[in-house]
Amino acid sequence: MNVPSGGPASQAGMRRRNLALVLRTVAERGPLSRASVANEVGLTRAAVSTLVEDLLAAGLLAELGPERSQRGRVGRPGSALRLAAGRSAPVGLGAEIGVDHLAVCAVDLRGAVLAHVHEETDNRGRPPSAVVGRLAELAAKLTEGLDAGGPPAGLAVAVPGLVGDPADGVVARAPNLDWTEEPVAAPLRDRLGGLPVTVDNEANLGALAEMWLCRPPGVRDFLHVSAGIGVGAALVMDGRLRRGARGFAGELGHVPVRPSGPVCSCGARGCLEQYAGEEAVLRAAGIDPAEAARQAGPAGRVRLLAERARRGDGRVRGALVRAGTALGIALAGTVNLLDPAAVVLGGGFAEVAPWALAAVQRELAERLPARGVPRLLEVSVLGREGPLLGAGNSVIRGIVEDPVGYWESRAR
Amino acid sequence: MNVPSGGPASQAGMRRRNLALVLRTVAERGPLSRASVANEVGLTRAAVSTLVEDLLAAGLLAELGPERSQRGRVGRPGSALRLAAGRSAPVGLGAEIGVDHLAVCAVDLRGAVLAHVHEETDNRGRPPSAVVGRLAELAAKLTEGLDAGGPPAGLAVAVPGLVGDPADGVVARAPNLDWTEEPVAAPLRDRLGGLPVTVDNEANLGALAEMWLCRPPGVRDFLHVSAGIGVGAALVMDGRLRRGARGFAGELGHVPVRPSGPVCSCGARGCLEQYAGEEAVLRAAGIDPAEAARQAGPAGRVRLLAERARRGDGRVRGALVRAGTALGIALAGTVNLLDPAAVVLGGGFAEVAPWALAAVQRELAERLPARGVPRLLEVSVLGREGPLLGAGNSVIRGIVEDPVGYWESRAR
Repeated sequence: MNVPSGGPASQAGMRRRNLALVLRTVAERGPLSRASVANEVGLTRAAVSTLVEDLLAAGLLAELGPERSQRGRVGRPGSALRLAAGRSAPVGLGAEIGVDHLAVCAVDLRGAVLAHVHEETDNRGRPPSAVVGRLAELAAKLTEGLDAGGPPAGLAVAVPGLVGDPADGVVARAPNLDWTEEPVAAPLRDRLGGLPVTVDNEANLGALAEMWLCRPPGVRDFLHVSAGIGVGAALVMDGRLRRGARGFAGELGHVPVRPSGPVCSCGARGCLEQYAGEEAVLRAAGIDPAEAARQAGPAGRVRLLAERARRGDGRVRGALVRAGTALGIALAGTVNLLDPAAVVLGGGFAEVAPWALAAVQRELAERLPARGVPRLLEVSVLGREGPLLGAGNSVIRGIVEDPVGYWESRAR
Repeated sequence: MNVPSGGPASQAGMRRRNLALVLRTVAERGPLSRASVANEVGLTRAAVSTLVEDLLAAGLLAELGPERSQRGRVGRPGSALRLAAGRSAPVGLGAEIGVDHLAVCAVDLRGAVLAHVHEETDNRGRPPSAVVGRLAELAAKLTEGLDAGGPPAGLAVAVPGLVGDPADGVVARAPNLDWTEEPVAAPLRDRLGGLPVTVDNEANLGALAEMWLCRPPGVRDFLHVSAGIGVGAALVMDGRLRRGARGFAGELGHVPVRPSGPVCSCGARGCLEQYAGEEAVLRAAGIDPAEAARQAGPAGRVRLLAERARRGDGRVRGALVRAGTALGIALAGTVNLLDPAAVVLGGGFAEVAPWALAAVQRELAERLPARGVPRLLEVSVLGREGPLLGAGNSVIRGIVEDPVGYWESRAR
């Protein structure tokens, strides 16, 4: 059953696929000589050389040595290939609309961050068009100021809500922003000169960042949990993000933890978010969420919890243990259903992990006695930066996985 | 990102892929003329004719008309192609090792059942080698007695337990049979003259049967729930079964429903199986499971519940409502995580659906107010026959999805 489904195989499709294979191989294992690429991918040196010429001409590959290869000269061991960088190479723009901030970054083909801007602001009170307008300004300014890297190939935006189809770029529902059916991609595209724009859920992009930047290429099944004001998750199975039938998969925050528990904003009872969401933890710790936002800024509330826990505040520590316990119960069910190779805790969780992680681990160990829990659970090193990095890298990955699609779109 | 990953594209790979595409097209939409196949798959008539000749020669396709096509004569509108049947066409053998029965069936390339044998027996008390030995006898006898259909292409076995890799065919754990690390494929292969044998979890094969036999080709994301003595589930995402990192996905029966509930056989507390598993329902209805098995036979216990519920037995009806409520809670979490297009209730559930389905629906409607629950939930028409049919059809699908793999394995 190794035969891929889809349309018929053709000469053009074969070339397209092999160009992507060569580019991906250099991206994952470069710098590599042509001979090494041929060896890695299982094509002849002559075939690889022709493909490499096309990728050099498109500005996607570059040679480490000073001189350019001449068409037809193959197998020179010295001229190692790497992904292109510098003024003519494409960059990807990533952006994030948070409940309490806006951010934009530019990454090069290798995923290196070339520039970055972050603005704290309470987006809950502002009309969506003002938020999107300000994001367009930040993206335009960042692009103008870039002194490395060529023209942006596209923009991907992370949002704290549900998006049915990233290419449509409409936010179906973002409860913490109070947005419903809000078009985000179209107005950005208009304001950025027709630049291709996609929009995706922050947890999805955080998971992709984790896979691309932090996982060895072999790890292809994991669950990425993104705890912030809400609690989201994203599923990577067989190396691909699984969005579900309508694009709404990963709503870990609304998994029932105690079926007769408190009523949630979604209308159900006892959802995980009522125990492990940021506002629920603040309330359980005896802290008024609005008051905490006034004191510490909306982005500072998790830091506030971490500080008080560090100072030994018993109520805060108790609330974090309660959150970890609830997260452990929900994750036990999730692991039983999905059998992931790893569960990665990202988002704001990293900052409070010292006080909550043991409770998560205890629940998992009690509920999954045969699953090898200690190896299962990890805390992301990307933390809150995951969604933004995932957004920028998703533009770049789109090019690496289908270079022909990229240059066809440039020609239009 | 439409470029498939994997090895390099080559001429041989292209032919292999296009042979599968032609065969699959006839399987899904046949009978079809060569011209219609060319039209459907987007290849030229000449290319399709060459591929069709290979598939006719291999005994996988046949023509509806009496005369065989001659090589090079293309486009005759009258000679419609269909999947081969009869004495020279391959058949697939499917088998099931149940807690209380053994079964074997033979299906032809079109999925039609040619023969079928079922034996009630309590497999819990018998050594695994005796169970596997008896299954080999049944399979050999069924094959000898086949008067339609050619040689078996392989055997697939459904088991009520976890299987890491179907090709290895080792049952890692089957709690209701009390089997651990039990090799099943190897002894069957030895006793059946080297026939290729795979082994898979019954819920997985039930889900595949549902997808192949009951779903329109467009439905590619659904959850299949298989309630019997245990409660299992299988995930189909993007048209493929998702087995998880170790092959243990789908353990719906051990999703925590009430975190402080009764201790389960797995060691955790409040698992769904403690409310919706067959033995739990019997006990909640005041019926001793062992006594019920003596009265009605092990396979008759669900029928016993259904009869008593039909006659108005209040305790039985109450137990089924309690089971449906627990199932609804676990499914609410699952739908939040996976966003399936449908949740199909299969296995023994169909027989008790009249008394349990409303409770499942009520929980889902209360917990998923925005998800369109009435359209989400379905009861499988395959019921208990799903795993056996899925096993037989998985052999046949293996041929249809990679005919070159099939004839290469015959040549060895």
